[in-house]
Amino acid sequence: MDDGLNALLFASPQMREIFCVERQLRCMLQFEWALMAALESHGLAEEGSAAAVAALVDGGFVDREVLRQEAVAAGNVVIPLLRQLQQQLSSTPAARALHLGATSQDVLDTALVLQLREAVAVLQDTARKLEMALTRKVATHARTLLSGRTWLQGAPPTTLGLKLAGTLVALRRHRARLQAAAQGALVLQFGGAVGTLSVLGEHAAGVEADLAQHLQLPVAELPWHTQRDGLVELAATLGVLLGSLGKLARDLALLMQTEVAEVAEAKQAGKGGSSTMPHKQNPVGCAAVLAAATRAPGLVATMLAAMPQEHERGLGNWQAEWETLPELCSLAGMALQRSLEVVEGLQVNAARMRENLDASLGRNMAEAVSAALAARLDRVTAHELVRRATAMSQLRGTPLGEVLQQMPEVTAHLDAEQIHRLLDPENYLGSTARFLARVLGENDADA
Amino acid sequence: MDDGLNALLFASPQMREIFCVERQLRCMLQFEWALMAALESHGLAEEGSAAAVAALVDGGFVDREVLRQEAVAAGNVVIPLLRQLQQQLSSTPAARALHLGATSQDVLDTALVLQLREAVAVLQDTARKLEMALTRKVATHARTLLSGRTWLQGAPPTTLGLKLAGTLVALRRHRARLQAAAQGALVLQFGGAVGTLSVLGEHAAGVEADLAQHLQLPVAELPWHTQRDGLVELAATLGVLLGSLGKLARDLALLMQTEVAEVAEAKQAGKGGSSTMPHKQNPVGCAAVLAAATRAPGLVATMLAAMPQEHERGLGNWQAEWETLPELCSLAGMALQRSLEVVEGLQVNAARMRENLDASLGRNMAEAVSAALAARLDRVTAHELVRRATAMSQLRGTPLGEVLQQMPEVTAHLDAEQIHRLLDPENYLGSTARFLARVLGENDADA
Amino acid sequence: MDDGLNALLFASPQMREIFCVERQLRCMLQFEWALMAALESHGLAEEGSAAAVAALVDGGFVDREVLRQEAVAAGNVVIPLLRQLQQQLSSTPAARALHLGATSQDVLDTALVLQLREAVAVLQDTARKLEMALTRKVATHARTLLSGRTWLQGAPPTTLGLKLAGTLVALRRHRARLQAAAQGALVLQFGGAVGTLSVLGEHAAGVEADLAQHLQLPVAELPWHTQRDGLVELAATLGVLLGSLGKLARDLALLMQTEVAEVAEAKQAGKGGSSTMPHKQNPVGCAAVLAAATRAPGLVATMLAAMPQEHERGLGNWQAEWETLPELCSLAGMALQRSLEVVEGLQVNAARMRENLDASLGRNMAEAVSAALAARLDRVTAHELVRRATAMSQLRGTPLGEVLQQMPEVTAHLDAEQIHRLLDPENYLGSTARFLARVLGENDADA
Amino acid sequence: MDDGLNALLFASPQMREIFCVERQLRCMLQFEWALMAALESHGLAEEGSAAAVAALVDGGFVDREVLRQEAVAAGNVVIPLLRQLQQQLSSTPAARALHLGATSQDVLDTALVLQLREAVAVLQDTARKLEMALTRKVATHARTLLSGRTWLQGAPPTTLGLKLAGTLVALRRHRARLQAAAQGALVLQFGGAVGTLSVLGEHAAGVEADLAQHLQLPVAELPWHTQRDGLVELAATLGVLLGSLGKLARDLALLMQTEVAEVAEAKQAGKGGSSTMPHKQNPVGCAAVLAAATRAPGLVATMLAAMPQEHERGLGNWQAEWETLPELCSLAGMALQRSLEVVEGLQVNAARMRENLDASLGRNMAEAVSAALAARLDRVTAHELVRRATAMSQLRGTPLGEVLQQMPEVTAHLDAEQIHRLLDPENYLGSTARFLARVLGENDADA
Repeated sequence: MDDGLNALLFASPQMREIFCVERQLRCMLQFEWALMAALESHGLAEEGSAAAVAALVDGGFVDREVLRQEAVAAGNVVIPLLRQLQQQLSSTPAARALHLGATSQDVLDTALVLQLREAVAVLQDTARKLEMALTRKVATHARTLLSGRTWLQGAPPTTLGLKLAGTLVALRRHRARLQAAAQGALVLQFGGAVGTLSVLGEHAAGVEADLAQHLQLPVAELPWHTQRDGLVELAATLGVLLGSLGKLARDLALLMQTEVAEVAEAKQAGKGGSSTMPHKQNPVGCAAVLAAATRAPGLVATMLAAMPQEHERGLGNWQAEWETLPELCSLAGMALQRSLEVVEGLQVNAARMRENLDASLGRNMAEAVSAALAARLDRVTAHELVRRATAMSQLRGTPLGEVLQQMPEVTAHLDAEQIHRLLDPENYLGSTARFLARVLGENDADA
Repeated sequence: MDDGLNALLFASPQMREIFCVERQLRCMLQFEWALMAALESHGLAEEGSAAAVAALVDGGFVDREVLRQEAVAAGNVVIPLLRQLQQQLSSTPAARALHLGATSQDVLDTALVLQLREAVAVLQDTARKLEMALTRKVATHARTLLSGRTWLQGAPPTTLGLKLAGTLVALRRHRARLQAAAQGALVLQFGGAVGTLSVLGEHAAGVEADLAQHLQLPVAELPWHTQRDGLVELAATLGVLLGSLGKLARDLALLMQTEVAEVAEAKQAGKGGSSTMPHKQNPVGCAAVLAAATRAPGLVATMLAAMPQEHERGLGNWQAEWETLPELCSLAGMALQRSLEVVEGLQVNAARMRENLDASLGRNMAEAVSAALAARLDRVTAHELVRRATAMSQLRGTPLGEVLQQMPEVTAHLDAEQIHRLLDPENYLGSTARFLARVLGENDADA
Repeated sequence: MDDGLNALLFASPQMREIFCVERQLRCMLQFEWALMAALESHGLAEEGSAAAVAALVDGGFVDREVLRQEAVAAGNVVIPLLRQLQQQLSSTPAARALHLGATSQDVLDTALVLQLREAVAVLQDTARKLEMALTRKVATHARTLLSGRTWLQGAPPTTLGLKLAGTLVALRRHRARLQAAAQGALVLQFGGAVGTLSVLGEHAAGVEADLAQHLQLPVAELPWHTQRDGLVELAATLGVLLGSLGKLARDLALLMQTEVAEVAEAKQAGKGGSSTMPHKQNPVGCAAVLAAATRAPGLVATMLAAMPQEHERGLGNWQAEWETLPELCSLAGMALQRSLEVVEGLQVNAARMRENLDASLGRNMAEAVSAALAARLDRVTAHELVRRATAMSQLRGTPLGEVLQQMPEVTAHLDAEQIHRLLDPENYLGSTARFLARVLGENDADA
Repeated sequence: MDDGLNALLFASPQMREIFCVERQLRCMLQFEWALMAALESHGLAEEGSAAAVAALVDGGFVDREVLRQEAVAAGNVVIPLLRQLQQQLSSTPAARALHLGATSQDVLDTALVLQLREAVAVLQDTARKLEMALTRKVATHARTLLSGRTWLQGAPPTTLGLKLAGTLVALRRHRARLQAAAQGALVLQFGGAVGTLSVLGEHAAGVEADLAQHLQLPVAELPWHTQRDGLVELAATLGVLLGSLGKLARDLALLMQTEVAEVAEAKQAGKGGSSTMPHKQNPVGCAAVLAAATRAPGLVATMLAAMPQEHERGLGNWQAEWETLPELCSLAGMALQRSLEVVEGLQVNAARMRENLDASLGRNMAEAVSAALAARLDRVTAHELVRRATAMSQLRGTPLGEVLQQMPEVTAHLDAEQIHRLLDPENYLGSTARFLARVLGENDADA
């Protein structure tokens, strides 16, 4: 976890805490304590051993800079941590059995799992809040018309509710995915040197079960030291979630453009200003989310690339995970939090939405006329007729309706009122209400 | 799908067929046919329209080079395809209603889903076969000892069965993940211009349901044109699967090294030779799998990066998916197939495994002695004592057992027979049998 | 190279040809011919051998499907290609010496280099044309005012010329980089089985030199079979180029938004239409460029990930390059070509640019006033004063100038005319002319 | 920059210092000081202003936690930093002109450039040392034979010197590339709000020149705020460098495998041990380098993906660079340092290399015999003859030489002594000496 000046720009305070140095130390020490407790209850450690370790679980004794220095030669932080811990325990019954049966990777992987468990809980909680906030906005803006836009070009209308509903249903899927991925990833790693728990002999099953119980983690079907699919699935799930949040942020940022001005992030003192331009209200929330979405693909790729870990412990690839997965969690935590703030505080300018819609002089509605004509003529003729009408409307700056009313090929089939009705966006929302009823679970699509 | 000289190196024949030009055309035309049938049964197309389209679903009429040329200006292949199709239908009742209510993306996305459905079936089928092959090998080699290796250095023993079991249980997880991801991704996309199905008005629900039924696809909660999480989850799932297969391939390739020589790919005429070295039997199966695993992270990253698709249709990012997801499917199909061949044909040299294990002169077993001593002394003293013994053993080329028997600090606690027993790899498999019983579902871990 | 329906969407016709099957075969056969000629002139092949191979360089004899099939077991296409070639040569003097001294990788790598040489020439040529087109537009629009935009929010003005000049100078840098990267990558690979040219003994130096000369390639300092930095630098260079083109395309696509409408891609029959919306003129050129820019990072990552190739020939990683680098070349070729078309055909609506600028009612110019006041008050006070003024302007929809003229704190320092002058965008272009003079190499920045 | 427990595992101490919080603050404040000095000398700031800022450049006054908090709403750290700085300066002449003419991005980008300049100097210095260390090893082991290995299978011999020379010449190329990339990236960014330097009016050129001179940075052709190719080229160059170092580390790690044991990292107390296995000497140096090489592709991909930055300031993509590029520098610094230690301390077991070579019973030399026969028979016949011989040798465990001497088809062309000579690895080094002479610049390839 980064402690640089940008720390809070790329992590939520909660995530920063979960992945801070203190917490990582505590999780590793918690593993050693839980193992000691399990050993003790199977007679593999003297009475009082677990208590001796318990007193040190807060990690206050650790000289971190020495630990960092020694980790370079040792290859990981567990070895120097055990050295310092052993010194603390030298005069206690725990000295003999410390770490018995385990290997460094058991400590590192399981400590990571403990941190991830907290992280996932925070992520799920924030995701749930975001879901609720989105649900409210979807309901409120179920009929708030705005221009549809495809290829960044004006298109027939949709509603802000339907637009946000897309993210809402994606978010529901993400919550289910995250739960499934967490179930696969949040599992005890305990295998000893090569995954056979050999040191513990016949006591292995019992120690394994007790250790898992002390940490409230499920036992894995097999030690997974070099089978990383559970962790990587979790990483990928966060990546996909960030992609969906990026989509939301990009859409909102586009709607916030000065020339579009249909929505805005909530105003707040000191927010989104500029060091030189006094008028600025930058969409900083969306920017933060997009930054996370931009960084996620590379981080997920790293996790995937690190999967072919050699034999019973990887050489370089396992190590490549260490900063990458916490980074992804932080970005996801921050992005959910910022998305929540953006959605909750979203200022919607429905009048401007209507203005922008009308500014196309009906051209965005061309499809409606074309479809109506296709039923009388044929598809190609109708399409071409209306294409010519829109080109003329654009060239002359004349409303499409007027142009159409001057085309005999059109008026042969549609009278003025029909044209008028076809060009009214309110009449062209199609299944919007039906879709939103599905999403909001209403029985009556007319609501 | 690539038709270059390397086509079959990076795709299985089945995948090559699923993603070939003919099939893509047929799937797109199938969409148009199913839509026409739905329109017809709702009175939105004249009788006989669906039949007219049905006659063209094989795509034989398509001038592909013209289609490729026109797609450049049009921005996608559906627009020129519809032009050619419309020409074919010009004198039929279908001319009027062709494509009514749909947009290009509906065709492209749903056609892709149809191809993916076939691809997933093939992947699952091959994965199932691979699971069976692995299960057999795990059972056969449950007790075939070989050196454990961590950081590519000799470590206490494991068995080939346990080693392969890691991949086996990962593969079971992958099959479940693939099923879940497929369920999320294999869904009809049908939204019209902006996802509101406006053209179809009140008929939308009925046409949507019929279209889905004709294609035997579920209806989505909402059109997902710019919510790509389902597709990307599928892509990520394939990426994680390829990571696990890469792990298997890397391990086997390392075991096949001339200096290790513990396993070999099945021999076959023309396989793994060299253009210049007559003695070569290269592990080409493993290489192909590793190539796929090396390419997957970048492809998954592309899918993730393409997620923030603007408003109601993306600009550049949607298009970035078009070749990327089929590529991932092909690589996964090939890698599963090659893994299956490698595992089924795997030649195991158990004698050599034992030789390599014994070549460490007992040093790989150092942990066993250290753990035994730790119970009598303390952990640090025991570790240091045995460390010195292994250093001496290595320096002098003397078996570790002999060195230990000459150290009074050791012999004070362990007699010659105890040392001998501790250094016997057969006695140091720990929970291996127990773990394999879990995996193979045997009731008796003693087997 | 993909021969799918999207082939031309992701490759220029020229690139498609360079990386087609025929060309790859010809390049590999060219290597074998050039080697044979070198062998012949050093007495290592019988007279007439080179001529015999020369007659087959067009590759017409190759059964490609058989080649694809056999490549799967062989591990690469060279081995089966040599088998077919040898059959053709069986009754000629060339039969004895074919491929003498070389290994498959020599053929594959050098053939790739030959293809890359052509690709780089095309890329440089198109880049040069794009540079010229941009230069013209920069000169033409040196003083065409439009709103600056930061964080997608209105900001002080810039000119279209200066905006495009950013891409222009980047493109100049890219051309230099591409030349440097090409110089490093376009080098003969010739090392035999392990890079020692052992088969050729004392003749190696001569054969190496002649081979290089026949192919007009420089000799490498060392065979580079597993040192891929040259190729990967080329790949990365293409990736960075695509990033710059993506920036151009994104900016133009944003300016083309219906609500902004400041520029447009050239109109053309059949271009940028929709299968259902008759009014559409989608920015398909920009979309294609953005698709390429979206795909490039993953492909470059693959090339980087494939670099640690084992010992004297990689296992899986070398193979991962085979489709990846040609793909990058194709995308770069297409993106340059499409960018050229977009820039050359760019329709600029200067009036609309001015309208959008004015629509901020002077708020985009707030910095000018703030800076003027800061010289009299202090920076913070000035910034805060103007911030309040812009907020009031926005709230009331009143021009900023009017608001300012009603603030005594402002009018104490600035009179109406001064305020008016400060708010005129024409007066606030700063170094624009000076910068463009640098770029266009004019002596007189006033031009 | 990460301050976690793994900080030193993924950064060298020097890199950690360059990218620490203190240094980042100082570089940003240095920019503000240099700007103030430039303003002062052009009469845009009162006398004494620069001195007032100079006294604060060490950043001791900054409340970092407040800065981090405020940065979240502000969108970057410069805005809150300026607030704190302004407070310090409130009673000084500098209050009025602070930051005049600049924007946040000018500060952030130029401060990054200042940090990068130091980082590149360190990288070049370490790369030079590594080059020297490699040169020594190449010279020392120019004739130290070991098995060539292709596809991880035994192949004809090479020498350790030639093997390392591959990395040596790549490293030379990397140093040149890094210099070129640094030249392109280490440039002043100074453009004001939108890149026109409007606030400074006619003084812009002078202030720009002075600012650049104070920071000893070149002036850019144009402000490059949204043209990131220079930075991304630097990132890519580091990525390619890490790929080459990864290749070296992978090769050495493979040679260090217990079963190969041809080289070892230098022994050192506390190095490469295990928390449970007393005999372990893990190749931790190689692992660290490989971890960096595994992480680089994803980070480079992020930099590439962030390139299409919108208009005059990006939304999310610029921000995605902030932690990514420093991370890459750190990984490169660490990987160079660890590579240097590994190469300098490399323990070479030449006897073991010879043993491993001889263990193939001559089969690795098959190509030599095949080539000799091909000159008499033809290529295919010779290859097939020797292939059969090697198969028999392997099956029976008989030396290839004996097998060959019993094959009349062989002995018709080669007598026992010829066969013996052909199978001697010492006679089969081909151009090794010639190549090394090229690399080491010796005049006499016979040396």
